[in-house]
Amino acid sequence: MRPVITLLTDFGTADGYVGEMKGVLLSRVPDAMLVDITHEISPQDVEAARLTVARVWRRFPPGTVHLVVVDPGVGTERSALAVDSNGRWLVGPDNGVLSPALLASGASAVALAVPPGASASFHGRDVFAPAAAALALGSSLASLGGAVTHPVIRRTPEPHRIEDGVLAGVVILIDRFGNAVTNLVGLRAGVIEAAGKTLPMYRTYGDVAPGKPLAIIGSSGLIEIAVRDGSAARLLGLTRGSPVVFRARS
Amino acid sequence: MRPVITLLTDFGTADGYVGEMKGVLLSRVPDAMLVDITHEISPQDVEAARLTVARVWRRFPPGTVHLVVVDPGVGTERSALAVDSNGRWLVGPDNGVLSPALLASGASAVALAVPPGASASFHGRDVFAPAAAALALGSSLASLGGAVTHPVIRRTPEPHRIEDGVLAGVVILIDRFGNAVTNLVGLRAGVIEAAGKTLPMYRTYGDVAPGKPLAIIGSSGLIEIAVRDGSAARLLGLTRGSPVVFRARS
Amino acid sequence: MRPVITLLTDFGTADGYVGEMKGVLLSRVPDAMLVDITHEISPQDVEAARLTVARVWRRFPPGTVHLVVVDPGVGTERSALAVDSNGRWLVGPDNGVLSPALLASGASAVALAVPPGASASFHGRDVFAPAAAALALGSSLASLGGAVTHPVIRRTPEPHRIEDGVLAGVVILIDRFGNAVTNLVGLRAGVIEAAGKTLPMYRTYGDVAPGKPLAIIGSSGLIEIAVRDGSAARLLGLTRGSPVVFRARS
Repeated sequence: MRPVITLLTDFGTADGYVGEMKGVLLSRVPDAMLVDITHEISPQDVEAARLTVARVWRRFPPGTVHLVVVDPGVGTERSALAVDSNGRWLVGPDNGVLSPALLASGASAVALAVPPGASASFHGRDVFAPAAAALALGSSLASLGGAVTHPVIRRTPEPHRIEDGVLAGVVILIDRFGNAVTNLVGLRAGVIEAAGKTLPMYRTYGDVAPGKPLAIIGSSGLIEIAVRDGSAARLLGLTRGSPVVFRARS
Repeated sequence: MRPVITLLTDFGTADGYVGEMKGVLLSRVPDAMLVDITHEISPQDVEAARLTVARVWRRFPPGTVHLVVVDPGVGTERSALAVDSNGRWLVGPDNGVLSPALLASGASAVALAVPPGASASFHGRDVFAPAAAALALGSSLASLGGAVTHPVIRRTPEPHRIEDGVLAGVVILIDRFGNAVTNLVGLRAGVIEAAGKTLPMYRTYGDVAPGKPLAIIGSSGLIEIAVRDGSAARLLGLTRGSPVVFRARS
Repeated sequence: MRPVITLLTDFGTADGYVGEMKGVLLSRVPDAMLVDITHEISPQDVEAARLTVARVWRRFPPGTVHLVVVDPGVGTERSALAVDSNGRWLVGPDNGVLSPALLASGASAVALAVPPGASASFHGRDVFAPAAAALALGSSLASLGGAVTHPVIRRTPEPHRIEDGVLAGVVILIDRFGNAVTNLVGLRAGVIEAAGKTLPMYRTYGDVAPGKPLAIIGSSGLIEIAVRDGSAARLLGLTRGSPVVFRARS
């Protein structure tokens, strides 16, 4: 079977940095299937990258290598990681971006050595892509470095319980459509309060009139605030970190 | 031969929705060749997506599966389609986006069932990608659902004949270069009137001085208004729907 | 081994032009591995495309075909080239965009014929992609056209020596992070003067406080002006062509 290597960066594509990494990968693993996840993470937005990793890493088949490079600390003392988790491999900086895989049961991680001559500003090309290639070719995790027992972990903040059936949460992500994804797991019937409005929970966008706001349980299982045929972020002024309240139907 | 599956969405890539679909596809069809057509259709712009489908679907070899997800009506009663047309398969919502293939001679379509547990806001992942994978693995169209005899059809508007040799048309698309693609088929010598200007038809951009407007027969056979080394949309204030007139040389 | 064909354009992806080229390639070379380098070069920015080609072309394994279409002169008398250089092939317009490969020792080039019926505005689909496919299938360069002995060459400007240890250079590129890449090769210790500031040379971004400017030797070996966790272009007002001075440590 061809090895699958995915790429997830904040590099954009125009400057050729992604192209260089792809060249390194194919030079070492000529039969690799390269899969772009995204190169459009906002520059240095580790949190957005972490949430994207959370969405995708386990959707791919076992054996996949995920190469994740959103790395504001490149060239500093931050470690470079390779991770084995649930049969997938991940490679990337030790800044929390790989947390979704590191937190899974049975995960293990090692610290990659920085080869002599590596650019201090482009570990994606000189450290992470070579490690991803090695894993795709069958190298063991242990062969790549020594165990890391306390990697940097980032977590989605937990909602705060105000009283029975009332939870205080936040917007954790604005997506391309202007949907505001919250940290509230969508399990119970109720309403969402956000931006001074009380929004009923519906099943899908089409349950309200065009231009109207609503709340739904999004595709990751979290409550989202949306506007049918529009942008909730723009209409309601929501941004990452905006407070939201869930009030269960009594 | 490896199955080819193309992806065409309005998702952008940063949020991971495309990544999730790719994971679903490769988990089910490990030897698939995934090909990005675009994820940069403007959010919910079904018309732009339809025109992109028109350009590309038949360029790919027979056996290709095109996965098209621009789907403002996700989760509503709109059908989910799989289409067999000219030896290619297409999967996407029943909102007109697949019209170019549905209108081809011999096309047939079925309605996909929505599996239990599918997200009401992400059929791309839970309905369309699994159907695309099934087709890539050799499932018959009939095995995926019941026949759909009246799918939603969208068409490029026909030009209106004003008098002999004079046709009234519209701009149907502004491309990335600011070229304004019209609904006028470029068959006859003449001039184009648009934005208060009369533009001669030329063979290519280089036939006028830099910064000057012109009309050409574009690569899809339609008349386009362009500016050499510039943007016709910006210079002439053209947008989708702007009226244009073709006047044949008498 | 599957042939690798990379694509580098200024087309964006939304309009379907890239999709058409991919369809042409896969129709002719069904087992090709298509690799997107970028489609986000600014429209008609031949210089940015040349610098991206310089970064990537030799990173890919021998046998790779690079399809490069940034082509403001499409349809004019400019030649269409296929190039054999260092075991890689490149196909694109004769406007300097292929210079990094043409300048390498042992490179050779031929002029592609424009087939009857080719669109005068889309040689990417009708001239360059078919030539790339032919090369991927094993056609010889000579079989594609007659030798071109004086292709258009673009070069990064050479720095100007002001006095011993003092070089005047320019910014040649602003990257996605706002880093200003200069034409100064980073070989010696010293300082950079730019935008009225004197910037020390450091090893990497993390060597200064967040928000502070610095100079480093970038991943292509050239001196770059950067801001830790920020944009040097924005903070210092640097653009392509901005003057910079390197002053060696005495």
